[in-house]
Amino acid sequence: MGVEILPRTITWMNRADNNEVRPCVRIVDQCVLPEELRYCDLYTHKELIDAIARLAVRGAPALGIAGAYALCLWLCNEVQNKCVDEHFLGEVRVMAQRISNTRPTAINLSWGVAQVLTAVERVIVDVATGKVETTGTMYSSWDYLLKQAVKCARRIEEDDEMINRALAGFGAKLLSHNARVLTHCNAGSLACGFYGTALGVVYSAHAQGKIAHVYVDETRPLTQGARLSMWELMRVGVPCSLQCDSAAAHLMAQGLVDAVIVGADRITRGGDVVNKIGTYALAISADYHNIPLYVAAPTSSLDPTIVDSSHIIIEHRDSREVGLWQQFSPDVLNPAFDITPSHLVRAIITEKGVFAPHQICSALQV
Amino acid sequence: MGVEILPRTITWMNRADNNEVRPCVRIVDQCVLPEELRYCDLYTHKELIDAIARLAVRGAPALGIAGAYALCLWLCNEVQNKCVDEHFLGEVRVMAQRISNTRPTAINLSWGVAQVLTAVERVIVDVATGKVETTGTMYSSWDYLLKQAVKCARRIEEDDEMINRALAGFGAKLLSHNARVLTHCNAGSLACGFYGTALGVVYSAHAQGKIAHVYVDETRPLTQGARLSMWELMRVGVPCSLQCDSAAAHLMAQGLVDAVIVGADRITRGGDVVNKIGTYALAISADYHNIPLYVAAPTSSLDPTIVDSSHIIIEHRDSREVGLWQQFSPDVLNPAFDITPSHLVRAIITEKGVFAPHQICSALQV
Repeated sequence: MGVEILPRTITWMNRADNNEVRPCVRIVDQCVLPEELRYCDLYTHKELIDAIARLAVRGAPALGIAGAYALCLWLCNEVQNKCVDEHFLGEVRVMAQRISNTRPTAINLSWGVAQVLTAVERVIVDVATGKVETTGTMYSSWDYLLKQAVKCARRIEEDDEMINRALAGFGAKLLSHNARVLTHCNAGSLACGFYGTALGVVYSAHAQGKIAHVYVDETRPLTQGARLSMWELMRVGVPCSLQCDSAAAHLMAQGLVDAVIVGADRITRGGDVVNKIGTYALAISADYHNIPLYVAAPTSSLDPTIVDSSHIIIEHRDSREVGLWQQFSPDVLNPAFDITPSHLVRAIITEKGVFAPHQICSALQV
Repeated sequence: MGVEILPRTITWMNRADNNEVRPCVRIVDQCVLPEELRYCDLYTHKELIDAIARLAVRGAPALGIAGAYALCLWLCNEVQNKCVDEHFLGEVRVMAQRISNTRPTAINLSWGVAQVLTAVERVIVDVATGKVETTGTMYSSWDYLLKQAVKCARRIEEDDEMINRALAGFGAKLLSHNARVLTHCNAGSLACGFYGTALGVVYSAHAQGKIAHVYVDETRPLTQGARLSMWELMRVGVPCSLQCDSAAAHLMAQGLVDAVIVGADRITRGGDVVNKIGTYALAISADYHNIPLYVAAPTSSLDPTIVDSSHIIIEHRDSREVGLWQQFSPDVLNPAFDITPSHLVRAIITEKGVFAPHQICSALQV
């Protein structure tokens, strides 16, 4: 049944509990995969922020959806029946910033939050200028605001799958027949609402019978490749195998790899790519072996405001992620991301087509 | 107290147990470090072969000593009072081959075995030609053979430290003041009888006050960097920190690394270097950043018989080393070594001096 066997990563629900209908966000808890496919229903923005922080939900496109839903949960639960005015907008902006700060490197999180914030701003203007017909009560304008915010967030989730299927189609065309692809981390369905970016390209090419093999980097320290990408690929039935990150170059030297495909957490104006730690090393090795490295990402991962990559905040995570040797208190460096300069990226695959990295922002006029 | 605080990795002992003196080989069990510094006394060649196979003793120079001692233990225990003749030599050769096969990639193991084999051959010739004065009994010639074999093996252990200190002295001269060194795996004292090759260079430079910092690759899958190199460096008091293998290139991009120093398991005629998986990727990254990569190894790691690196047997180890996801039976590739072509190696540091990789065999006339 192919990719349809994969679960929806994150979705909005109205759950009926004890005769009360409550909005909630259902996520696949990615901390317990592959041992268990467990869903978590999160009822508050705090629960969702916690899930983002502990990487129960992760991956740039999924974080876009999660950010939008987190702001919606806050609106639904924490600030009911506020006066929909400029003063309130200030509170929304503070919360939007707080959610965005949970993970600073992936732009999609703040992008998703910003989409809902924009919807809220529009409602406030519409209410203030009387452009929107409400019954005039505070309740009705509040109700309208919630509807618009949730509609916006759900739209992000719906669009995500369409975007991924579109970029996957463009990406699959770049692969030769019997392609042997190497990937890093998880830019699969679990990193999105559904389908995947880098693995989306693989799924699309696999459906066309074009994939001979996928080599999956373990992706230390949190092993998203070993735990998540391998789980997805095996479930969908794509031929795949796992190797330690440091073995990728050795596989390239043996002539086993035709293309490298990864996702992105942020793409700068010049086409530099921020992605999971290890992407940069992989890009250098791919370049050395003249193997194309493709980045598959939605245009929402573009950040045209960043001209100089050195200004990007690289999230450093808890050193305990790296190992069990903390009793000896070694000094541990645990950067979660690195920056791959545009000249090491053969092309960026988006839902709007395939672009040369240094031209992507000008081509898309962003 | 510096490097003297480190334990002897492998040494020959005559242990008095229950009024009986028995030869044994005492090793530091490297499988339980850093949790515990545990010594194991091994009385038979089978125990030592098992220790080699499970990596309780590992590292190219230490394997040279271990191979020599394994053959000695077999001579001492398994084949007492044999007739010292050509027929017996055939049996020794079979056992020598069996020990060497335990780990096929590191040349030092078979080199150490071969040293003792040569000593045995010499004794057999000497006995046959009457060059050696024995009392004429089978016992006395056997006793002489054992003495010569053990003497040869202990000499390898003794020489090891001198060799390491010599190469470390040459290597330290290559480092600038306040050098920030990155290393992979463990080419430290634990990989040798004592002192270390790549870390030997670090210890020598540290004693001269030249080391600002050592960045240690975790070295998946068996984490010899995190477990062994970090343990050594912290014990000796060298400033150090740990990072995932895939983060090394990111540290280089940030300008934090002045030199990369690694060991070697085998060096070909042309100067290609077989070493722990991940060395090749590191070498490509170092080359990309124009950071010198030095290989520190005794000349016993040279294998002038290998002209074409593609003929080298790369040991593939149990896939269970890579992870805990075997219940999902993923296909796992676990090559233990890779091959770094000579042009990516700035220099090879040996006990006989520093050499350009492609010239090392001709310069040393091997």
